[in-house]
Formats: sequence, C-alpha cells, structure tokens
Amino acid sequence: MLDLATLARARQACASRECWSPFPEMPNKYPDADTAAPAGKAAFEALLGQPFALDLPGVTGRAGEEISPYTQQPLGLTYPQADPDRLFAAARAALPGWAAAGIDTRLSLLIEGLDRLYRDHLFTLVHAVMHTAGQSYNMAYAGSGVNALDRGIEALVYAEQAMRSVAPQASWARRFGPSEIRLDKTYRLIPRGVAVCFTCASFATWNAWPSILASLATGNAVIVKPHPASVLPMAITVRVLRDLLAERGFDPDLVTLCVDTVAQPLGKILVKHPGCAIVDFTGSARFGQWVEANAHPAIAFTETSGCNTVVLAGAEDLDAAIRALATTMCLFSAQMCTSPQNIYLPPMIDTPAGPVPRDTVAAKLAGAIASLTADPRRAAMILATVQSPQTLALIDGMRDQAAARGRVLLDSRRYEHPDFPGARTATPLLVQLGKDARDLYAEERFGPIGFVIDCDSAADALEQATADARAGGGITGFVYARDEDFIARAEAAYARAGAQLTVNLTGAMPLNFAAAYSDYHVTGLNGAGNATLTTLAFVAPRFAVAQSRRPAAGAA
Amino acid sequence: MLDLATLARARQACASRECWSPFPEMPNKYPDADTAAPAGKAAFEALLGQPFALDLPGVTGRAGEEISPYTQQPLGLTYPQADPDRLFAAARAALPGWAAAGIDTRLSLLIEGLDRLYRDHLFTLVHAVMHTAGQSYNMAYAGSGVNALDRGIEALVYAEQAMRSVAPQASWARRFGPSEIRLDKTYRLIPRGVAVCFTCASFATWNAWPSILASLATGNAVIVKPHPASVLPMAITVRVLRDLLAERGFDPDLVTLCVDTVAQPLGKILVKHPGCAIVDFTGSARFGQWVEANAHPAIAFTETSGCNTVVLAGAEDLDAAIRALATTMCLFSAQMCTSPQNIYLPPMIDTPAGPVPRDTVAAKLAGAIASLTADPRRAAMILATVQSPQTLALIDGMRDQAAARGRVLLDSRRYEHPDFPGARTATPLLVQLGKDARDLYAEERFGPIGFVIDCDSAADALEQATADARAGGGITGFVYARDEDFIARAEAAYARAGAQLTVNLTGAMPLNFAAAYSDYHVTGLNGAGNATLTTLAFVAPRFAVAQSRRPAAGAA
Repeated sequence: MLDLATLARARQACASRECWSPFPEMPNKYPDADTAAPAGKAAFEALLGQPFALDLPGVTGRAGEEISPYTQQPLGLTYPQADPDRLFAAARAALPGWAAAGIDTRLSLLIEGLDRLYRDHLFTLVHAVMHTAGQSYNMAYAGSGVNALDRGIEALVYAEQAMRSVAPQASWARRFGPSEIRLDKTYRLIPRGVAVCFTCASFATWNAWPSILASLATGNAVIVKPHPASVLPMAITVRVLRDLLAERGFDPDLVTLCVDTVAQPLGKILVKHPGCAIVDFTGSARFGQWVEANAHPAIAFTETSGCNTVVLAGAEDLDAAIRALATTMCLFSAQMCTSPQNIYLPPMIDTPAGPVPRDTVAAKLAGAIASLTADPRRAAMILATVQSPQTLALIDGMRDQAAARGRVLLDSRRYEHPDFPGARTATPLLVQLGKDARDLYAEERFGPIGFVIDCDSAADALEQATADARAGGGITGFVYARDEDFIARAEAAYARAGAQLTVNLTGAMPLNFAAAYSDYHVTGLNGAGNATLTTLAFVAPRFAVAQSRRPAAGAA
Repeated sequence: MLDLATLARARQACASRECWSPFPEMPNKYPDADTAAPAGKAAFEALLGQPFALDLPGVTGRAGEEISPYTQQPLGLTYPQADPDRLFAAARAALPGWAAAGIDTRLSLLIEGLDRLYRDHLFTLVHAVMHTAGQSYNMAYAGSGVNALDRGIEALVYAEQAMRSVAPQASWARRFGPSEIRLDKTYRLIPRGVAVCFTCASFATWNAWPSILASLATGNAVIVKPHPASVLPMAITVRVLRDLLAERGFDPDLVTLCVDTVAQPLGKILVKHPGCAIVDFTGSARFGQWVEANAHPAIAFTETSGCNTVVLAGAEDLDAAIRALATTMCLFSAQMCTSPQNIYLPPMIDTPAGPVPRDTVAAKLAGAIASLTADPRRAAMILATVQSPQTLALIDGMRDQAAARGRVLLDSRRYEHPDFPGARTATPLLVQLGKDARDLYAEERFGPIGFVIDCDSAADALEQATADARAGGGITGFVYARDEDFIARAEAAYARAGAQLTVNLTGAMPLNFAAAYSDYHVTGLNGAGNATLTTLAFVAPRFAVAQSRRPAAGAA
C-alpha cells in the first residue's frame, strides 16, 4: 500500500536516481492478478455503451465520441459536459479549504489517490487506455499504468521538496538605532489558483498524473481537459480523486472534467479564462506553442512533439544496434513522443569488421522491421494499433512524397490483429532521403514513419541530427558510435540541442524507455515543450509565498 | 571576507529566516569607514564628467544622460553603447566555458564579485546611487548597498539549492525479461542562455544584484539594461564582474551593459531578440506587463509597481502607529515599490481610550508628516530627493484632482536641502477621498503622494484595501487593529490579495523594511510582478537538465 513512507523512499530514489518502483513491472506480477485482471476487464466492459456516472457542477449536456482503435467501433460512452464558467467558479470556491489543509494532509490524500488507482482501477484503466489510445495490453499496464503512477509519485516528491523549502514561521530580531525590533513572521503557501490540464489522445496518464498531482499537492484545483478521443482514463482518474476528496471532507470540485468535442473545442476558452492560473499541456506542437505564447497571466507547462533523431556512426555489434532501433521504431507504432524517427547515416558505418556501406545498413534496418512485424501475433504485441485515422492518411502522404524525392525502403501495410479483426493497424513506413528533403523529415511525423537520411560523414550526421532536434524539437536522441571522442562531442551537441541522449544501447530495454525517478523527460530547451518531468521548476512556480509579520508577543 | 563559508551561513539563515547579515548595517560600522567613505566619494567624483571606462563588444558610440537629483545638473558621464546583436553574439559565445565551469567555481567567483563590490566599491556606489536615484546617504548604504548585497547572496543560496537537487550522475539497473540492463547516467545542468536584466531608476541594485547573480550562478550570461537615468551603479557592477571573470580565465562578455536613451529605447528590441532566453524586469507596470505577455519563448521575472495599502482599524498606541506610518510614507519620498500609499479608515478608529473619529486620525497623520518634514536637515535624511521631474508633475496633477473631488489634508512643497541647494525635493501630498474617487488611488502614484480613503467600517476598509491590492498590484500591506479576529481575517485577505503583510508595527524599523534571508518580496499573485525574492521559482527555471545514458562499462 502506498503511503507517506512510499514518498520518503521515492525521495531517496529521486536523489540517487537509481532504479526503484513500488509497483510490479509486469501485469502477471500484480497482486492476485488472476482475479484482478479479468475483474478490471469486466469493469471496463460494463462501462461501455453507458453514460459514465460522474457528478460535476454546471452540467449542460453529455458528449462522447471515443472510438476503439482495436474495433474501430464507438465505445458508446458519454460524459457530462459542464459549463467552463461553472467549473472555474466551483474550483475557486473549493480552493481555500484545500490550501488550508497543509502539506501533509494533501500529500497523504494524493498518495492514497494513486494507491486507489493502482489497487482498485488499474486493469480497468489498462483496457480504457487500450480502447482509446490503442496501446498494447502490456504497454497500457506498464507505460500508461505503473510507470505513470511512478511519475505521479515523483511529482509529489518534488512538490514536497519545493514546499518544505519555505519555513512556516520565524522569529526575527534586529536592532534599529537604540531599540530592538522583534517580529514573529508567518509564511503561507498560496496556491496559484485553478489549473487546466490538457491530456493527449495516445498517452494521457503519463503526463496527466504528474501534472494533476503537482498542481493539487501545491494546493491548486485542477480542471482536466482530455482529448475527445481519450476521455475514459481521465474520467476514471477524476472520479477516483473526487470520491476521495469528498470522503475526506474536501470539496470534490477541486478536480473536475471538461469534456469537449472535435467539432466544438473548448481549449482556447479554458486557457484564456480569467480564472485560469496554470496550464499543463500535452499535445500538438502548434497548439502547445499557442498555449505558451497566450497563457499569460497563467503559467504554462508544455510537452508537445518530438522530432527524435538517431546518429548511427558505428557499432560494436551492428546487428544488435539495428535490432534495438527496429524494435523501438515499431513500439506502439512509433506513437510515443520519445519514438526515434530520423536515422542519420554517414556513407560508411564503422564496425569491428570494417566499414559497412550506408545502403547495407539501411537495408538491414528495413529487414529488421519487416521481420519484427511479419508474424501478426508478434506485430500485435509490439505495434499494437494506430490511434487516429489521420495517421494512416499521413503515412500515405509521406509514402508518395518520399517515393518522388527519395526511395521507399519498406512500405507500410495493414496487418491482421489476431484478437481484433477490425483493428486499425499499420506497419512502419521506412524511407530514405537526402538532406534536400529536410522539409519532410525535420519535424515530427506522428506515427510509424521513419526516415533514413544520407549524410556526408559521421560529423555531418551529428550536426544534422542535433540541428534538426534543436529546430524541430527533439525530446530524445540516440547515438551509436565506437569513437569515444565522437561520443563526447555528441553528448555536448545533444545537450545544446536540448534532447535527452541514449548512447550505444542495445538489448531488451526499449531505447526510449524513460524511468520515473531517474530519467528526465523533456529539457525545455527546444520546441518540444518547456517543462521537464520532474524538476523543481515543474512544481515551484505552482505556489507563492505570502507572509505576515507582527511584533513578537512581549516585544516593545 | 565573503566566501563559500558565507554562503553556507546564508543557507542557514534562509532556512530559519532569522536576522543575519555578514555586513554592518550602518556606514559608520564599515571597516575603516573614516578612510573608506571619503575615498569612495573621491572615486565617484573622479568619474564625473568623464567617459566611463568599460570595454564592451560591438561599441557603436557613447551615451549618457544622468542628472543628479541633488544638483539637477548632468553628471557628464558617458558610457559605451553597444550593438544588441553583438552583445547577444558575444554572450552566447561566452556561455559554454561558463556552463562547463561547474557549480562550485561559479558560486565562488560570484561571491567574490559581491565581496569586491562591498570592499572596493561600496562608497563609490553609495554616491552613484545618491546622484542617480536620489536616495539619502544612509539609504544608499543600507537599502541599495549592504541589503542589496544580501539579496544577491540569497539568490546564490537558492540557485545552489536548485542546482544541487540534480544528481550529477547515477547508476541504474533493471531487469527486462531475462536480461539485466545496467546504465550509467550523466545529468548536465544547461543554462537557458542569455538573460536581459532591466534595472529601474530609483532602486537599481536591490533587484539587479539578485537577478544578475541568479542568472550567472545557473550558468547563463547577462546583458544589463539600466534605466537611462541610473546607469552608473550598473556600470560599476558590470565592470567589477567583467574584470573578475577575465582574471579567472572566463570570457568577460558573460556580463555586458546595454545603455540606451529615453529618446531611443532598446528594451523591446532586447526582449524580442531571438537570443534572449531570460528577462528580469524592474520598472513600470505597463512595460512589465508587456514583458510578461511578450517575452515568450524567453522566461520573464518581473517586479513592477505597488499599490500599497494600509488599514487602520484600531491601535493600542494610536500616536505610535501614526508616527510609524508618517515616517514610512516620507521615507525616500515614497519612491520605493514597498511604500504605503493608501490609508483606508473606518468612521471610528478603535483605541484603548475609546473610538477616535476618522477626521481626527487623518489630521494627526497630516500633522505627523508635517512635523517630520518641517526641519530641513531632518527632512533631508528622510525624504532625500525626488528622482524624476515627472514625479513633481504627478504631484501637481493629483493635488488638483483631489482638491476638486475630496480635500487636501497636507500640501506638498519643496524643501530646502541643507547640503544641496539645487536638490529636487517635495514633501508629501496627503489627500482625503471617498470611494467614488477609486480611479485616482487604486493604482500606484509613484512618489510622495498619500491617499486617506473614507470607508464605511473596518470590514469595508479591509475589503477595499485588499480588493485594490489585488486589482492594482499591492506589494506590501499594513494593518493596525486591536481585534485578533479582524487581524486573522486580514491575514487571510492579504494573502489572497497577494500583498506581504505587516501588522501593528510601530517603532524604529521602517514599516516597509524587507530583510534579505527573511522577508519574501512580491508574491507573484497580483499585477505587482510575477517573481519573488527569493524562492526556488526565482532560480529553478533558469537552467535545464540534459541527460546522457549508456550501458555501464562491463555491462552485457
């Protein structure tokens, strides 16, 4: 069970950045998994086709347009739609009691909130994520489940650290001329107000939970604005937190849900609302940049897209490097903001057996991806499904343009999902281009689309990759090289470009796996977003310090 | 001598928020003051009428338009003017070496920078502040001297705390299926880039030193953009830091000066420059709000103006409360962002001797101010001079409007400064208005202008005062009351309004004295600015974390 002792242990992990988690990493290790897993699935199925029961202030109607990527059929769920003015008013009214509750009370309640999500709802969430985001069962459990819960705990650790850095009170005495002034001072933590948390369609919980908890821990209220295609994981989250708040005597309107539709989006209305004090945004680069530029006077924390780059200059074990790359490029059909997209290759790749020509390496990569996706059962585990039909259109467009300006190394195709015959699927498209096609590859092309880019040399590959990461907003970068000087230059160049770097990694870990308590996610130094999971800068601006001072009792 | 041990002691003071300073509080306690004080004055006088020697990149000409408020004569100093593009380019080129220097090296150098300002230049700075800002000798020593240095040390404490919260490296190991992945991780602190620090005319060093040091400590470069009326204190600061950087083998272009003129301001050009990553701004509310709204993608830290409010509901010693208020309203002719401006009075003020009618209290306040300013020598010590001729015009305008809509309790007049017959001076204007004149008083009227506002009751006075503080941007608030319940409500109301509160203070300490290491300055919760001296939120966003991870040596 999670409690304040868990938080103390997590604090230690954040300091050492060692590997730690209170959760089992695989679904079969979940306590009593044989019962819990089917019960969660049944609970999910019982929700389908029904109005989702959620009490909210200011309800004006219902909406719901989720479609399962696994069946391409509507989930049939509807959610209450609430008037934004009423949500802000209710949240503001709820603030004073929550702010007054103090650090310990808020932290214990929130850690219990995570515990309830884990113990009572995890497998329901797993299926909710599968049938909205389209992730595989294992990824929905790990990436969107326990690892996202870990990110939430981590946000609590940093929120606590920032809040504890302010003394609650002080005694102060100083001589002014002949007299001594003695003052008692009280320092209050004042939450900034009402936060709006935008969550994305493909990986909602992983950013949402830390953002929501960072705001709540520091005393704010949160209006969660989910992407209309992925509401259910957030609706469950909001209901769990509201129930818990109410049980503990707090106003449940500290956490509400604002559901909108693709046709009638409410995002800009929420951001520009006079009651909006904090915006957390995960989503498109275009809207994210609008948020950053327009949120004022609200403060904004954004994570948008990743133009993620790989420099393959050399490898001790070329086949292992290519297998690792191929696997990670296939993982969840590259619909993660950390998925590698662009592979920059010099004319010759350095290996212990001598230089290997670029086209050989490109062909090996295409072959590895083809091999990974050949068997439908294996493809289903790795690729899962494609969240949005727009991604299929993007693949078609990129194939046509790449064929005209370069060559298609591996075409994308639908694969037959063994369990869901109606699943929306696509194997990766891999194309090879020259630097003259930078307009095609130097931004995020969301989905299973990879670019092999011909560079003049290893140094040129590094320069191109880091320039594109800086300009296009890279979240992750990957380098394979045998030359330590080159690796040192790459580390410096990627740090300047603002992408988190992984060097020479092969083996069973997905290259883009980001571990809570250990891996920083997004630097804030390029267009991929301005906030990092998790630093003090992610939590400290969410509250202010108001002081009151007066002569000490008995002072002159 | 200041060193890293000083910083350790300061860290302790920031945690306990007790009274502490490594500096003597009064100029006569300065080491060897009898020699140092005249030597500093002579050094200042030697600068007058000369081109100020400062080596900068990209110099295109010289400018200087400072006029002493004590003589109303030009100082005759000119400063090099540099091309902003060249300043940004030079600063960017200087960044890598400074970022690579590491936390300890940067902190030791910067603490030595403060030490040099204190030991070698303090009395020169005192006269520079007097003859640009117009402060008194004692205030220039204390508020703009040692207390401002303290604020700088405090910024280093928080910068260190934020930076140390990031481990420099980690070992991480986790099982993925059958294999164990072991990674070595390195976390680098990446400065955000080039900061622009805007400093104000009347109190430059107090905000500038902490801002400059917060940026430099976290690895950034700083372009200092002083108000054209108060360049000299910043020019001295920049020269000291540049010399020190160069002596220690760093590029001096980490700190440069960008001098502009009233006719040709460069502020917006600097903020919108693509090289600008951080803006620190102290100055007008109007430009400050433009900075907050337009700095993106740079981050902005602002402190603008204060519509500072006093609720006088009751007092144990009414005369003492009125003396304290009168003194603080006179201090530096109320040209501090913390000066009280609006006195909200109920019809009757509660005292141990029974209720005292409002008009009696208003008359007592006017009398106390008149008495404090009657003797020119005493007036000179408290009021000092008026920084800008515009302030005299504002006084005239307010007098005319207040006479038409309320009444003038005490008129403003010039007083004869005993040492400087040409000084620009003005005693405070005190007017009495009803709530219908809110358009006159509900914003900062910079300078010696006070408003007594007739309220319906003590509760109404508190409501009016905190509403005006919230809407008009209050930095400080002051309450006098005998009823503890009322005080508790006032504490909550001022915290919500975002003004730092002082309750029932009388005696020798100026009511608006803000002690480094103890008093938080600006909450960030209203229009008076978005940044607080000093919290983690003031420093943590100035750097990012970039990581690199790779298989541990000897790992599979």
